[in-house]
Amino acid sequence: MKQDSKSSIVEEVELRGHIIDSLLLPKVLDTITSGGGTFEIRQISIGSGRHDPSHAVLGVYAEDQQTLDEILAQISDHGATPTAGQDCRLVEADIDGALPEGFYSSTNQRTEIRLDGQWTEVADQEMDCGVVLDVDSRQPRCLPMTDVKQGMPVVVGHAGVRVFPLERQDAGHAFSFMNSSVSTEKPKRVVVREIAQALLDNRHGPGKSLLVGGPAIIHTGSGPLVSELIRRGYLQKLYAGNALATHDIEQSIFGTSLGVNVQDAQIAEAGHEHHLRAINRIRRAGSIAQAVESGALTSGIMHDCVKHDVDFLLAGSIRDDGPLPDVLTDALEAQRQMRAGLKDVTFCLMVATMLHSVAVGNLLPAWVKVVCVDINPSTVIKLADRGSFQTVGLVTDVEPFFRSLLAEVDELEKQ
Amino acid sequence: MKQDSKSSIVEEVELRGHIIDSLLLPKVLDTITSGGGTFEIRQISIGSGRHDPSHAVLGVYAEDQQTLDEILAQISDHGATPTAGQDCRLVEADIDGALPEGFYSSTNQRTEIRLDGQWTEVADQEMDCGVVLDVDSRQPRCLPMTDVKQGMPVVVGHAGVRVFPLERQDAGHAFSFMNSSVSTEKPKRVVVREIAQALLDNRHGPGKSLLVGGPAIIHTGSGPLVSELIRRGYLQKLYAGNALATHDIEQSIFGTSLGVNVQDAQIAEAGHEHHLRAINRIRRAGSIAQAVESGALTSGIMHDCVKHDVDFLLAGSIRDDGPLPDVLTDALEAQRQMRAGLKDVTFCLMVATMLHSVAVGNLLPAWVKVVCVDINPSTVIKLADRGSFQTVGLVTDVEPFFRSLLAEVDELEKQ
Amino acid sequence: MKQDSKSSIVEEVELRGHIIDSLLLPKVLDTITSGGGTFEIRQISIGSGRHDPSHAVLGVYAEDQQTLDEILAQISDHGATPTAGQDCRLVEADIDGALPEGFYSSTNQRTEIRLDGQWTEVADQEMDCGVVLDVDSRQPRCLPMTDVKQGMPVVVGHAGVRVFPLERQDAGHAFSFMNSSVSTEKPKRVVVREIAQALLDNRHGPGKSLLVGGPAIIHTGSGPLVSELIRRGYLQKLYAGNALATHDIEQSIFGTSLGVNVQDAQIAEAGHEHHLRAINRIRRAGSIAQAVESGALTSGIMHDCVKHDVDFLLAGSIRDDGPLPDVLTDALEAQRQMRAGLKDVTFCLMVATMLHSVAVGNLLPAWVKVVCVDINPSTVIKLADRGSFQTVGLVTDVEPFFRSLLAEVDELEKQ
Amino acid sequence: MKQDSKSSIVEEVELRGHIIDSLLLPKVLDTITSGGGTFEIRQISIGSGRHDPSHAVLGVYAEDQQTLDEILAQISDHGATPTAGQDCRLVEADIDGALPEGFYSSTNQRTEIRLDGQWTEVADQEMDCGVVLDVDSRQPRCLPMTDVKQGMPVVVGHAGVRVFPLERQDAGHAFSFMNSSVSTEKPKRVVVREIAQALLDNRHGPGKSLLVGGPAIIHTGSGPLVSELIRRGYLQKLYAGNALATHDIEQSIFGTSLGVNVQDAQIAEAGHEHHLRAINRIRRAGSIAQAVESGALTSGIMHDCVKHDVDFLLAGSIRDDGPLPDVLTDALEAQRQMRAGLKDVTFCLMVATMLHSVAVGNLLPAWVKVVCVDINPSTVIKLADRGSFQTVGLVTDVEPFFRSLLAEVDELEKQ
Repeated sequence: MKQDSKSSIVEEVELRGHIIDSLLLPKVLDTITSGGGTFEIRQISIGSGRHDPSHAVLGVYAEDQQTLDEILAQISDHGATPTAGQDCRLVEADIDGALPEGFYSSTNQRTEIRLDGQWTEVADQEMDCGVVLDVDSRQPRCLPMTDVKQGMPVVVGHAGVRVFPLERQDAGHAFSFMNSSVSTEKPKRVVVREIAQALLDNRHGPGKSLLVGGPAIIHTGSGPLVSELIRRGYLQKLYAGNALATHDIEQSIFGTSLGVNVQDAQIAEAGHEHHLRAINRIRRAGSIAQAVESGALTSGIMHDCVKHDVDFLLAGSIRDDGPLPDVLTDALEAQRQMRAGLKDVTFCLMVATMLHSVAVGNLLPAWVKVVCVDINPSTVIKLADRGSFQTVGLVTDVEPFFRSLLAEVDELEKQ
Repeated sequence: MKQDSKSSIVEEVELRGHIIDSLLLPKVLDTITSGGGTFEIRQISIGSGRHDPSHAVLGVYAEDQQTLDEILAQISDHGATPTAGQDCRLVEADIDGALPEGFYSSTNQRTEIRLDGQWTEVADQEMDCGVVLDVDSRQPRCLPMTDVKQGMPVVVGHAGVRVFPLERQDAGHAFSFMNSSVSTEKPKRVVVREIAQALLDNRHGPGKSLLVGGPAIIHTGSGPLVSELIRRGYLQKLYAGNALATHDIEQSIFGTSLGVNVQDAQIAEAGHEHHLRAINRIRRAGSIAQAVESGALTSGIMHDCVKHDVDFLLAGSIRDDGPLPDVLTDALEAQRQMRAGLKDVTFCLMVATMLHSVAVGNLLPAWVKVVCVDINPSTVIKLADRGSFQTVGLVTDVEPFFRSLLAEVDELEKQ
Repeated sequence: MKQDSKSSIVEEVELRGHIIDSLLLPKVLDTITSGGGTFEIRQISIGSGRHDPSHAVLGVYAEDQQTLDEILAQISDHGATPTAGQDCRLVEADIDGALPEGFYSSTNQRTEIRLDGQWTEVADQEMDCGVVLDVDSRQPRCLPMTDVKQGMPVVVGHAGVRVFPLERQDAGHAFSFMNSSVSTEKPKRVVVREIAQALLDNRHGPGKSLLVGGPAIIHTGSGPLVSELIRRGYLQKLYAGNALATHDIEQSIFGTSLGVNVQDAQIAEAGHEHHLRAINRIRRAGSIAQAVESGALTSGIMHDCVKHDVDFLLAGSIRDDGPLPDVLTDALEAQRQMRAGLKDVTFCLMVATMLHSVAVGNLLPAWVKVVCVDINPSTVIKLADRGSFQTVGLVTDVEPFFRSLLAEVDELEKQ
Repeated sequence: MKQDSKSSIVEEVELRGHIIDSLLLPKVLDTITSGGGTFEIRQISIGSGRHDPSHAVLGVYAEDQQTLDEILAQISDHGATPTAGQDCRLVEADIDGALPEGFYSSTNQRTEIRLDGQWTEVADQEMDCGVVLDVDSRQPRCLPMTDVKQGMPVVVGHAGVRVFPLERQDAGHAFSFMNSSVSTEKPKRVVVREIAQALLDNRHGPGKSLLVGGPAIIHTGSGPLVSELIRRGYLQKLYAGNALATHDIEQSIFGTSLGVNVQDAQIAEAGHEHHLRAINRIRRAGSIAQAVESGALTSGIMHDCVKHDVDFLLAGSIRDDGPLPDVLTDALEAQRQMRAGLKDVTFCLMVATMLHSVAVGNLLPAWVKVVCVDINPSTVIKLADRGSFQTVGLVTDVEPFFRSLLAEVDELEKQ
């Protein structure tokens, strides 16, 4: 295409990998035109088979430098790198807790920056962070803006930064957009089996399995099923809020969840205070662990976490009653501890909680496998929409889901 | 309360039964005031225990006769009967296919009309019908307006009509409005067990169990579970549409449902024509039964219906492809056959279909037990909203539901 | 890629047009691999600008002829045509009402078949039909299987058939999959303005605007807004069911919709019989038009359709009460009349009805602009999922939508 | 009813007010039987008109003291008070931050406790708190367990506590359960007019109007509408989270909300980093107010809050990016400040946020009028389910809602 005369600013970028398969080329072309630019394909070679890599060189045109910079910033997230090699630009943070204007904003994809002509991988990959450089080790890493300290060298602009979007691996399908895995009307067995397999793989390996769960786990009577997964060593970490822990403890002490008898499904008004009395008892004991020790708490998910060394983290929210003494009421502190705990997580199962799932999703790099389960399709759509081939959404009912999951685990154990 | 002077028209009504328990009195008082009338409680005796009946006599006041008549019409549906005994009024239908102006519009509750001073029960109870009298037998019955013939005597107005609202029986709870059984966050096991019990009770009894089902039964891979219920004699009737039967047959012939491989959940575009080819094959065979006979159809729900003498009725809709030759494409004819088939149904399980469930719900008297299962809460809310204590809504996933149901049936069989 | 030895069957296909932009190439590659085949890109030229067409030649490999045929059938729907030119194969229908085995199943995209070496466009384009040839005129057209007569020549297989997938036109975005227009959390004004523009364009042109509507239009109090669109000449056709027409007439006669007073939103049980009395009155009048003539119906959407020569079509369903005398109770007859009425429709607005919207969507070719409006995201997702760039989904509330639409129409009229 | 011999423990309670109208009697009888007790109606007088109060005396029977106590605790929440007059029992808190076992758990209804034979109203009414007594002033008040200090006298058990459930006032309907105001298919105009009226009433009065809002307000382009309400003095307080404020500021600085151009609805990937840059700018400025002062922020909701002295409170959550420097990241501190700010709020409008709406709902007494607006019915159901006649749910689209609200305000201003 002949560029119209207005688009006189140009930069050449290149794109490598499975750029057709993984939709990178279409996405990059779309981003350019919707950002107000135009393009010219200067060179393209498409691998003749599915697994052969492709390569394209594009000229990107825009009316002015600002538009071009914005376009380059966006397409760099899809892996388009300027062909003119440049080191990244570093600017010292001028105050604590904020980044310099023009800072490079990270994605959750693997990223490298160019320092002294050398490409170096960024550590602690996480979206929506700045990238700072350790002055001594020359190691770049992602850092949330709240943790920035004055004087830290911060990457500014997109020059000298390159992103490696995750490529689809599995053989069945080439393209994720055809896989609307959130549907309520699809058979789900295979996905459940894959979750079981992931739990099995992680049981004795270095990678950990994390359950991020909401209180519906207790309300639906799934507590004993999760407890069994814990006792059998399939879950190594639990992230939840005050509500899941409270209703689990209420269920253990009073046999109800939000006043509903979980055993025989008698739905009564009876016991609407139970959850408050449960919290009060644990507060009186000092902590969940102390309540287990003292014998005040003898069963349930939280009890089993204590007994089986499952790391649990309870993050607070403004809708909490109580809360339980273990709850981290400060959101930043909770994020810090979640972030630290996620370092060795390789599989994450998110069940029936929008808040905690989005929070964890924000902190995870794109290559960690995530499965989101909820009976509400809109929750699953929101969670599955991470732009990652590694996230699968499942619209189904919580209790039958855990029941099927345990059945699949049993079967896989026999093999 | 002293009535204001404007409300000079009055009628005395009485109300009997568990009028506090079943919320009849509050409903009647609400209907009077929201309809623009006022009331005076002239006499009331409330049974001192839960099972002792109560009795109330009310004066109902309104500004004009029309308002009063409208109020009386509405409260009569909740069982409030004028104390002044009167025979019902009969007017001959003047044309075919329509009722006289002012016709009495039926509810789905047990109803009696007074003829020659005698109360007689209305047959074929169904909501939104007229009540006509057989001239010879003096038997009143509900009749949809399309089936009315010129000359038939039709009940007009509410005088001489009394309705017996269903009263709540079970011991656990006195009042249905506290039982929001549609919640996604409640334990559902007890309800599933009760459904299993209802199926067991009906297996050899005179009452029949009816499944009203949508195509999600096939898409979710629940076909084999429904087939097993059929083969073991737990379902005697099936009402569905072209889609369920088509995808069941597609699944039997091609192994897919709407092109999705149900066995291994491979979600492909592959085979989107399969459903059309399946319909064409059955059309070529003449009917589903003939396809079974000729060996063209060897498995699946429809096959098992033919083999195990399950009455199936496929009602057409404007979104149907094909349709299959067995489909009743005329809505009135389908309604007539559904109505006839429902006479001996005592338990009705509605799964994953709004259209067919509402259609069947419209035809059923209030005392037939109905369970509605859908993963979409709005569907369940609409279906459960029949004003009947006999209807239970269940928000859950279809395939795990049938799996649990079979497990509960197995357990009950052992007892 | 070197093909593994098992994949010895091969066919060469070519793909033209905006194959990157419109995602055709990725879709074709995905379909091949997920269908069990492999591919080799033998030649590719990608236009250097957005509007320059591209061209690709692929070798498609499969283990056996059946797999290859199935893959070729599927990719032909995305426009991939075998390079080896062949006429289409015709087989005579052996019975009425069914197609020969192996029939070509149509899409809603523009299609040509090759007869005597000449490519001829198929008329009456509609998905899920057979393609039959008029013996005299040599004109091919889509025909639903129910209308097939013995002796008609029917296209069999995919040889000699080519499909022209619709290409995206608008400048803003290159790729539809990035445009999740169904979101509830997006600004919607621009879409509403575009709908207003489409109505204006069609007001005096040869293309007609069709409203497909559900009863929520009446329940939400949008009836007068739709009436105004009718009176001002913006809607030329209305497809609906018994319910919309019934509640519109109930609203006109009794001031309520399903017993709810639409004017002052008094939500009462009052008047739940009104809809039945409304139907009965129209049945007594003979038809809606006769009721308008006799003065029994003096306002409302249906009245205005009669007065302003808007073609209305009421299709029946098994959940209908009554129904109104104008309702087409036979689904096949309704489909036939809908199909005939759609010939000159160029813009279709679907509001608050799943059943009628899907039915109409099934009958429309891909190039007719369709907008689906519903407050329930799952309905919009289902309707918008037609694989057409011409379908836009809008999750919003019905009454405010029509109010905004009228405001935009007013503004455009002033220009 | 003759009590069975097992139920030998008895207590007499009385119930006053509109016990039929407000469903108190049915609820109390239900609670007794579902809690395992039985009852005997010893005396009842029902007012003969709608506004005449009624009175009932019941004997409540149970098998053992514990069951009876639990039943009495529950029915006391519905206003059933033991006839045997007793002072409330006070126990000193033995530790900080927890209540003594058996503490009385408060409701959100007006409550009195009996001290030295005198009934005294409890201050700071809030659900799920303890009731503590100020030793000097003898004033009881609700206190969350976290704020309890050792030595405070705490009410224990239900003796000497009486609750006054709110009674329904408006004339239209007697009973709230008939008013399913959440429906998507109801006309909503009247409710919108009532909200406008509430805003008008509060504009110059001592009661304040509070908006609790989520980020969809910005995404849907409703920001300017809310700003107009602020500038015209109709909103005195705003409770929100980091997301609403961030996207409002992003919209002001960059013209986008989560990267979507709100003006022309261009839905692009462009600008997904804008929200982060917006946060960073405010962090660099020190606070929102300082950014307004320095000219870094010149428009939008947050800007207008600063300029028009609207109290805003931003509560943090674990899914926050940044956050903005004004965000209260500690949930307990946020609750404390919310609680303090709610003292003079008489009307609360909750729009498009589950988390903040539930949090505020937990803190409000039952008599504050609350309207919940969301396009998702399940959110509205959850929020409207506070057991208060003062809470109305509205399922509708956010932007058209605010547009209609402003139109109604305009109209009311003219009167």
